[in-house]
Amino acid sequence: MAQLDALFRPRGIAVVGASARPLTIGNRIIRNLLRYGFSGPVHPVNPRGGEIAGLPVFRSILDVPGDIDLAHVIVRADLVASTLEDCAARGIKVVIVNSSGFKEIGPRGAEMEQRIVEIARRTGMRLFGPNCQGVMNSDPRVNLYSNFTFAKMTPGHVSVVAQGGGVAEVINNYFGMNGIGQRMYASNGNACDISIPEIIEYYGEDDETHVIVLHLESFADPGEFLARVAPVAARKPVLALKSGTTPEGARAVSSHTGGLMEQDTTTDVLLDKCGVLRFSSLSELCQVARAFATQPVPAGNGVGMVTNAGSPAIIVTDELVKAGMKVPPLSRESRDFLQEKLQSMASLANPIDMMATASGQEFGWSLEALLGDPCMDAVVVCFMTPFFVDTLAIARAIEEQARNSNKTLLAVAMTNPDEKPEWRETIDRVNAAGVPVFYFPESAAQVLFHMDRFRRLRDRRNEPAPRLDVDAQGARGIIASSHPGPDGFLPPAEVADILRSYGIPMVSESRASDWNGLQRAALEIGFPVVLKAEAADLLHKTDAGGVALGIADMDQLKEAHQDMARRLRGVEGVRWLLQPSLEATLEIIVGASRSPGVGPIVMFGLGGIHVEVLKDVVFKLAPLSATDTREMLDGVKARALLHGVRGKPGVDLAALRDIIHRVSLLMEENPSIQELDLNPVMASNKPGGTKVVDARLRLVREK
Amino acid sequence: MAQLDALFRPRGIAVVGASARPLTIGNRIIRNLLRYGFSGPVHPVNPRGGEIAGLPVFRSILDVPGDIDLAHVIVRADLVASTLEDCAARGIKVVIVNSSGFKEIGPRGAEMEQRIVEIARRTGMRLFGPNCQGVMNSDPRVNLYSNFTFAKMTPGHVSVVAQGGGVAEVINNYFGMNGIGQRMYASNGNACDISIPEIIEYYGEDDETHVIVLHLESFADPGEFLARVAPVAARKPVLALKSGTTPEGARAVSSHTGGLMEQDTTTDVLLDKCGVLRFSSLSELCQVARAFATQPVPAGNGVGMVTNAGSPAIIVTDELVKAGMKVPPLSRESRDFLQEKLQSMASLANPIDMMATASGQEFGWSLEALLGDPCMDAVVVCFMTPFFVDTLAIARAIEEQARNSNKTLLAVAMTNPDEKPEWRETIDRVNAAGVPVFYFPESAAQVLFHMDRFRRLRDRRNEPAPRLDVDAQGARGIIASSHPGPDGFLPPAEVADILRSYGIPMVSESRASDWNGLQRAALEIGFPVVLKAEAADLLHKTDAGGVALGIADMDQLKEAHQDMARRLRGVEGVRWLLQPSLEATLEIIVGASRSPGVGPIVMFGLGGIHVEVLKDVVFKLAPLSATDTREMLDGVKARALLHGVRGKPGVDLAALRDIIHRVSLLMEENPSIQELDLNPVMASNKPGGTKVVDARLRLVREK
Repeated sequence: MAQLDALFRPRGIAVVGASARPLTIGNRIIRNLLRYGFSGPVHPVNPRGGEIAGLPVFRSILDVPGDIDLAHVIVRADLVASTLEDCAARGIKVVIVNSSGFKEIGPRGAEMEQRIVEIARRTGMRLFGPNCQGVMNSDPRVNLYSNFTFAKMTPGHVSVVAQGGGVAEVINNYFGMNGIGQRMYASNGNACDISIPEIIEYYGEDDETHVIVLHLESFADPGEFLARVAPVAARKPVLALKSGTTPEGARAVSSHTGGLMEQDTTTDVLLDKCGVLRFSSLSELCQVARAFATQPVPAGNGVGMVTNAGSPAIIVTDELVKAGMKVPPLSRESRDFLQEKLQSMASLANPIDMMATASGQEFGWSLEALLGDPCMDAVVVCFMTPFFVDTLAIARAIEEQARNSNKTLLAVAMTNPDEKPEWRETIDRVNAAGVPVFYFPESAAQVLFHMDRFRRLRDRRNEPAPRLDVDAQGARGIIASSHPGPDGFLPPAEVADILRSYGIPMVSESRASDWNGLQRAALEIGFPVVLKAEAADLLHKTDAGGVALGIADMDQLKEAHQDMARRLRGVEGVRWLLQPSLEATLEIIVGASRSPGVGPIVMFGLGGIHVEVLKDVVFKLAPLSATDTREMLDGVKARALLHGVRGKPGVDLAALRDIIHRVSLLMEENPSIQELDLNPVMASNKPGGTKVVDARLRLVREK
Repeated sequence: MAQLDALFRPRGIAVVGASARPLTIGNRIIRNLLRYGFSGPVHPVNPRGGEIAGLPVFRSILDVPGDIDLAHVIVRADLVASTLEDCAARGIKVVIVNSSGFKEIGPRGAEMEQRIVEIARRTGMRLFGPNCQGVMNSDPRVNLYSNFTFAKMTPGHVSVVAQGGGVAEVINNYFGMNGIGQRMYASNGNACDISIPEIIEYYGEDDETHVIVLHLESFADPGEFLARVAPVAARKPVLALKSGTTPEGARAVSSHTGGLMEQDTTTDVLLDKCGVLRFSSLSELCQVARAFATQPVPAGNGVGMVTNAGSPAIIVTDELVKAGMKVPPLSRESRDFLQEKLQSMASLANPIDMMATASGQEFGWSLEALLGDPCMDAVVVCFMTPFFVDTLAIARAIEEQARNSNKTLLAVAMTNPDEKPEWRETIDRVNAAGVPVFYFPESAAQVLFHMDRFRRLRDRRNEPAPRLDVDAQGARGIIASSHPGPDGFLPPAEVADILRSYGIPMVSESRASDWNGLQRAALEIGFPVVLKAEAADLLHKTDAGGVALGIADMDQLKEAHQDMARRLRGVEGVRWLLQPSLEATLEIIVGASRSPGVGPIVMFGLGGIHVEVLKDVVFKLAPLSATDTREMLDGVKARALLHGVRGKPGVDLAALRDIIHRVSLLMEENPSIQELDLNPVMASNKPGGTKVVDARLRLVREK
């Protein structure tokens, strides 16, 4: 028996802090449990004794008889700890601490919360909450409404877990109001012990949960989230709303990669890595959950439509096409079949436009053709309810076709069910057949887009990263004996050595401290060259006038060196770096930044204005698979430049992906590296021509 | 009396083709008129006579007595013409032709439609439809439900006009289901005579119409649309859904500007010019209409919030900030006031987060503070309905504050009104106070964003275009005697002359047909130079290897000329063009393309990859105001480059705007120009340094 069975399938429940006063939490929970017919005994506990809702009240949890797995605790915060000791003594397995007054009120509450966590650790009893609503499980074998809200519980296939009580209520009520069945529900407030990922894992094991809805305000433990949620999301859709991106104080961000990472990037890369679908609209999330609850995931992105009103179907088509979905023409067979069956006025394009007078039978034929058409992975049936049409016949046709099909089927019913009982019945029957009925035409398009998004995430073959030959020990040695500046930045020569040990191709370079050395270096490298100034205080060389490109001969070098020396007169410890001029096709930036608790986030983008002005960059959470690096190259808006455009050649994509993989590995294997920027990487179309020209590396400060 | 008064405020109505059979159009219209208590007489007409719904049936429209302004005609398509003749003879002012079988069925129907339009023109009687629903007017002095649908009509302030019957029904039912009052409604199908812009103009004159909702599938007459709708949209919000962007056949598009103009661009620029808000989501459009119906347009983009549940308010904040709205902190005064009034646990940030137990009185104080706070232009009150709170007191507080405020106030109520009558009453009271209640938190944010969009559109001061000194006559002369190629393109020298007469700064250039001429030209212009090949068949010079840049001396010129001549050996009539090498800061593209029936659409963008790869361009409909050209420069994503970024200087913005204004004027004053591309314009930061380097101009083919 899974540990959380005691929470979601308890044999019996005690409510400590039960109350006879209506509209108190200690009363509502008992009434909810009784109203929904909980399968086991419910025992109120209150030192005053007496009777609540017809049940005898026990004076102590220690007096409660029988197999009681779960207890609610609704007592003053300062009494919770002693109550928990009693619960543990009584052999309770899980306690839902509804009481508030813990971490959410500040340091004093946090201390009390720490105390109750210690009790749990010591006794092995698990805690849910504190400062929380509770749980529900609509499984008819349990009928558990262990929660104090008013939201309706109808059996179904959506399971919800929410950190914020308010958002949880919005989700819960939406499903209740729209007759959408839920399976399990949990809102665990401060989540001091039983965690959200643990609950998602439990939902993952439940066959009747077809889709999981998640509301998060923060990641308590990103590593746990990744480990527990990714395997679930690979099997069934997990839809998340993450809100509350609190400003992370005034963290000094000095690298490009760090500066471009917005607060939300961490959430995005983590959810992407898990295969969780993120939403910013709660309404869209709820509608998509509805569809996943009863409809299969489409096998592709082709959508067929049938309608008795042209204009709304055009809206669906517009939205689908904008979202990158396909609205293919009917197959030859479908056309022939419908030509014979439908009225001659019907348009046999996609959408099939059947005129307002179309009968249920005609809807049936059209659906039969679309659901049987190999070009269609999903089908939308769109209808108004003209008063001269038997709309129940349309409902029957949809029911019948839905029964015989394993394709995704959605409905749009543009009607006011309050106006005619027959119309309400039409909608209710279609919904009851598992075909979700939307009101606005664009909703169907949005839902299909997100279903397809899930399919693509689930089906991405995560090809492993290539095996890389690196000198990990060498890099560790360099880092261990390195000389970081006050901000943690390493001197350029050490950075270059670290990168070389990981096989990251650096441009050849030569350093000098004076003009004589420079002359020698130039003769060694060969003109044309690039001259750069290096100093601990010189982070953005170009801005400071510390870079001179395309120096053709010794005279020009001399002039450039003198100019630069004059400009940087105030800077201490300047050294001179010479590199060969590269004939690069494209400037690239590759970077990485370690997000606390999450891990290294790797960035790829085009350099210059693409990164400076257009912020056209892509982030992924390390470790990176081969699929990840391909998606990164495909993810920039200016990707056409990588492949070559209008006569300009593209660049060596394999070389770029190799560099990204090596950066990912370097960050994974060396937790003391905080940030890394390779900027620019000069990408070339010639094999072996792609080189890192400049790099900055910062160690974690508390090294 | 306005002409359309006979349609929306008729003194009496005849229904020709009335029927006693329930669920026929000729029956529904009579029942709807009676059910809603139309203010005047309703007379059924049918050759069979008898009685319908208790009313005597006249055998002919000619027999109908009294002041009858409006007639419905619901007879077979081939009988409509003769019926209309009778209506005209009877003195009917407007006829709603519900019958179908006209333009929508093909050429035969179109011919019949033409016939009835001729009757209207000849007799002065106006036609609405054919193939249409009808109209409504909820003004209690009229109570006109001259329409065959079932949608509920409740008096209010939204007026709707829709081309597509299906979408009209969706809009109509949404308002009906959500108790949102409508003012007038019209769905005019084929719109053979009375047009949509004419109806919008009528709504514009109606003080009780606060917002106009529009569904369009095509612009019958863009000029009429602009002339009639723009003045209305300057006074009250017009919200449009335009769907059905039909592919415009296979038009050969040879210019950049034409190629970048998507089918939807015409709609976008036209609606933008009119000040109409375009939507792609019907649901969003309906919700925004709701808010405009009863709430004032916010005076700025600062939003204050108060909530009794933290997590949903965070969603509103996230969405507002993402959309560019402001969520400013409370003023000192507001904080002091609330510090004294609210419980100490309340957070006095924005949103004001009051804990679930907050009373109606506390909501009242918070609203008072927010509505009185000078930083807030709009306020959102967000609440759950905890069972231990008197939610009606919250409703009363909102009512009271709404009465005393002229700021925009929206509500988010996260509750299921079916669960408790008190909650339904709470929502109903807030709605009745004119404060629209939304369910999903993000809806309030979206609605405020669009209200702010309207404010910005309405308030943009359309500063007139500068007066330009141009030689219009000179340009007309050059065009009249020009030598267009088979595609309508003019020879480069003629293009340059036309542009010069409009004061568009061309780079100095010199042409030659052989090496001797080239040598002379080079000495005249001075090195470095650019060499280009010109020929009628050479549209994309660079791709064909017909451009050589940065030629430093006579030797290099000779070599470049020989190379190019070799490459273009197969091209006929090649001539050579020399220009000085420009030291340009940025490559720009300016273009224009004439959209049939709409006018010249002017394009601005950055050249190179910005236009080729990123499609970062902005379109506006000519004539352009000074505000338009400023918005165009601000409208490109890479605008930072225009202003200068990271040490690179910006460019002379005034020079660019001047060129765009001149292009606009050239297109306006010369309707025979179909397309124009200035590509590249070399923009400089030096006064007088910005020059057009290459240009192409195509005349309308049927010149």
